[in-house]
Amino acid sequence: MKLDVVTIGNELVLGLTVDTNAAELGRALAAAGVEIARHTTVPDRPDDIRAAVAEALDRTGVVLTTGGLGPTRDDMTKQVVAELFGKPLVTDAGVLRALEARFKKLGRWPMPAVNRTQAEVPEGATVLPNPRGTAPGLWIEDGRGRVAILLPGVPREMRGLLVEEVLPRLVRRQGRGETGSRVVLSRVLRTTGVPESALAERVGPVEDEIAPLTLASLPSEAGVDLRLTAWALEPSAAERQLAAAAALLRERLEDHCYGEGDTDLAAVVLALLRARHRKLAVAESCTGGLIGARITAIPGASDTFLGGVVAYADDVKRATLGVPAEILEQHGAVSEPAVRAIAEGAQRMLGAECTIAVTGIAGPGGGTPEKPVGTVWIGARVGDEVRTVKRVFPGNRDEIRQRAAQAALDLLRRMLLRSS
Amino acid sequence: MKLDVVTIGNELVLGLTVDTNAAELGRALAAAGVEIARHTTVPDRPDDIRAAVAEALDRTGVVLTTGGLGPTRDDMTKQVVAELFGKPLVTDAGVLRALEARFKKLGRWPMPAVNRTQAEVPEGATVLPNPRGTAPGLWIEDGRGRVAILLPGVPREMRGLLVEEVLPRLVRRQGRGETGSRVVLSRVLRTTGVPESALAERVGPVEDEIAPLTLASLPSEAGVDLRLTAWALEPSAAERQLAAAAALLRERLEDHCYGEGDTDLAAVVLALLRARHRKLAVAESCTGGLIGARITAIPGASDTFLGGVVAYADDVKRATLGVPAEILEQHGAVSEPAVRAIAEGAQRMLGAECTIAVTGIAGPGGGTPEKPVGTVWIGARVGDEVRTVKRVFPGNRDEIRQRAAQAALDLLRRMLLRSS
Repeated sequence: MKLDVVTIGNELVLGLTVDTNAAELGRALAAAGVEIARHTTVPDRPDDIRAAVAEALDRTGVVLTTGGLGPTRDDMTKQVVAELFGKPLVTDAGVLRALEARFKKLGRWPMPAVNRTQAEVPEGATVLPNPRGTAPGLWIEDGRGRVAILLPGVPREMRGLLVEEVLPRLVRRQGRGETGSRVVLSRVLRTTGVPESALAERVGPVEDEIAPLTLASLPSEAGVDLRLTAWALEPSAAERQLAAAAALLRERLEDHCYGEGDTDLAAVVLALLRARHRKLAVAESCTGGLIGARITAIPGASDTFLGGVVAYADDVKRATLGVPAEILEQHGAVSEPAVRAIAEGAQRMLGAECTIAVTGIAGPGGGTPEKPVGTVWIGARVGDEVRTVKRVFPGNRDEIRQRAAQAALDLLRRMLLRSS
Repeated sequence: MKLDVVTIGNELVLGLTVDTNAAELGRALAAAGVEIARHTTVPDRPDDIRAAVAEALDRTGVVLTTGGLGPTRDDMTKQVVAELFGKPLVTDAGVLRALEARFKKLGRWPMPAVNRTQAEVPEGATVLPNPRGTAPGLWIEDGRGRVAILLPGVPREMRGLLVEEVLPRLVRRQGRGETGSRVVLSRVLRTTGVPESALAERVGPVEDEIAPLTLASLPSEAGVDLRLTAWALEPSAAERQLAAAAALLRERLEDHCYGEGDTDLAAVVLALLRARHRKLAVAESCTGGLIGARITAIPGASDTFLGGVVAYADDVKRATLGVPAEILEQHGAVSEPAVRAIAEGAQRMLGAECTIAVTGIAGPGGGTPEKPVGTVWIGARVGDEVRTVKRVFPGNRDEIRQRAAQAALDLLRRMLLRSS
């Protein structure tokens, strides 16, 4: 089953609001086996709404809209759709009672006249009750099988109506058709430390084997995610094919894959440490606390993570972590000897068997021809074993810091995989 | 001037990625006086891309696309648009050289064959150089005045090309037309530490005075932002009216407003410290590095920020920061005496005149009836002056941590405003 989504609002086309409803609808509908053929965003102008909804109905016969159901003059969705379906607007007694009760409860009585329009619905429409707000959802259907589902734009109201009212109806509707239940399901394998093109060569040959599943690569500061998608299959077949494809990919990816879904590398590192009964401390310079923040974002981190030092100023590196002044003078704070001394200092100071250390130049200032912006030295210790790596990361300050944090966590992960 | 935006990607219709590019384009184009007539999102299927781009060209004559310019098989935008414009794809020598140079610089040589396709451009297209990635933007125009602007989907690449290449060209193009320039402009005042309803009472009376400008309140973990919007005015009138309204609002908001636009509170605190020639250190428990990460996200933080301690385990609070064991035993790590001792310890250890300290229960576990999840003690020192505050924040682990970091920075900000 396919439908079109139309999100309505000046705020959206002007970019004053990020359209999170679109993503939320995409995920929920795909998981229920409903494919979004197209998503259109239009401003609050009746002509634009009319054109978008009419085209959507021509394309898939089913359109789901968000926005434009409020009580203000801008809110025209209901009027436009009623007109397209050739139905007059009539006051729904049940909706009016619910509205009045809501305003009484909130101590806003008498109800402003403008809100009475919210009780008007296209004749014959099914009202989808919205306990979270004043505008109910509407389900409008005609004899030709065309359906328009109108939801409010406020995310938590939209979400409530989607889950409680719309998805069950769509699933039932789908059950009546001949297509059987078909879903779009995805699985994401996360990799880091390997460039996208190198990854493409490694997994490219698998693409034909896994067809009709598709493979997409999604690069970010965290690495490259590989997304497998099963299109329009029965749920059990989709799960089975995804599992087989994921296993095949994991084989190809070896250690480069650190997890699935939205697993954070920090959680993977914590789990590896926990399994080995080792405690972790971090020492951060250019990342300034990012690694600690990511680790402590994981619930339960406290059984494994002791803490860290943000040694931003060289004085702190020297006085707190005991980095020898000679190293800072001769090699600079962004150097192999410095990162070694920082990792060792943190291990000593915080009493952890494992440490991560990062020192680098995140920019925009501070770069030199020998050490350009993006130069980062990363170190990790597991007991007495030390590894250090120099990287030169592309991007702006934020991206360099994100990449450095990720690379540092990954260095420790790879060491832990080889230790017991 | 109007244009259509088409964002392309399975991840968008499936909701696996939130389409932040759409909002970013909306804001930037509105500020440049260009109206988005419609925004369409389609999956990576050539037929869908073709239909959406063709319809967009029929509607406004100018289409801006994002996504589908990468080197993989999914990336079909260039091929489809070239076909719509009746132009063959030809290898652009300049793009090829830039690509090869990029791969050499990153030490990935020889360049994978698959990336060669990224040097292919529709014949006659203007190449928009993309120093941030491998896919250049493309500007394709035909004799009938139709324009297609193709940008990559990676947000930072899209943003760079938009600002540096696309907006200047659109503004020049607009200059040739006859329509007077009207823009939609916004200004955001940021507040924190005041509940939305209290803020509404404070600024409510201003709403009529500032009409036809509108005022929207946008709550988040950072506080409540107030957005003023001037709709469809000439640029100078919009600027003038926004400035007057912002001044009026700032008067009402007093100290509660800490900045404008996307100013981070951490940058405001750094500037206050810098003006007072004071250095900062932080000591974090439940925020785990978040505050340090936010402070060091600001370019140039190193002249003011010395560093910090993430004292996550109680052992670290005791051994590193010198928090007396009696305090931890009698009052617990989340207590007024503990946050005082943590702030003092950080000041002593890192040699900073000003410190921020945070200790709390971010959950989901660890709450008790006396100290429920969300309980956070915050402390700040400016020289010998100490202030401590207890807060109980709502929300999940992430939200509690974000709110705690913001409240801690705000405590120091308010102390600094009263010190010299």
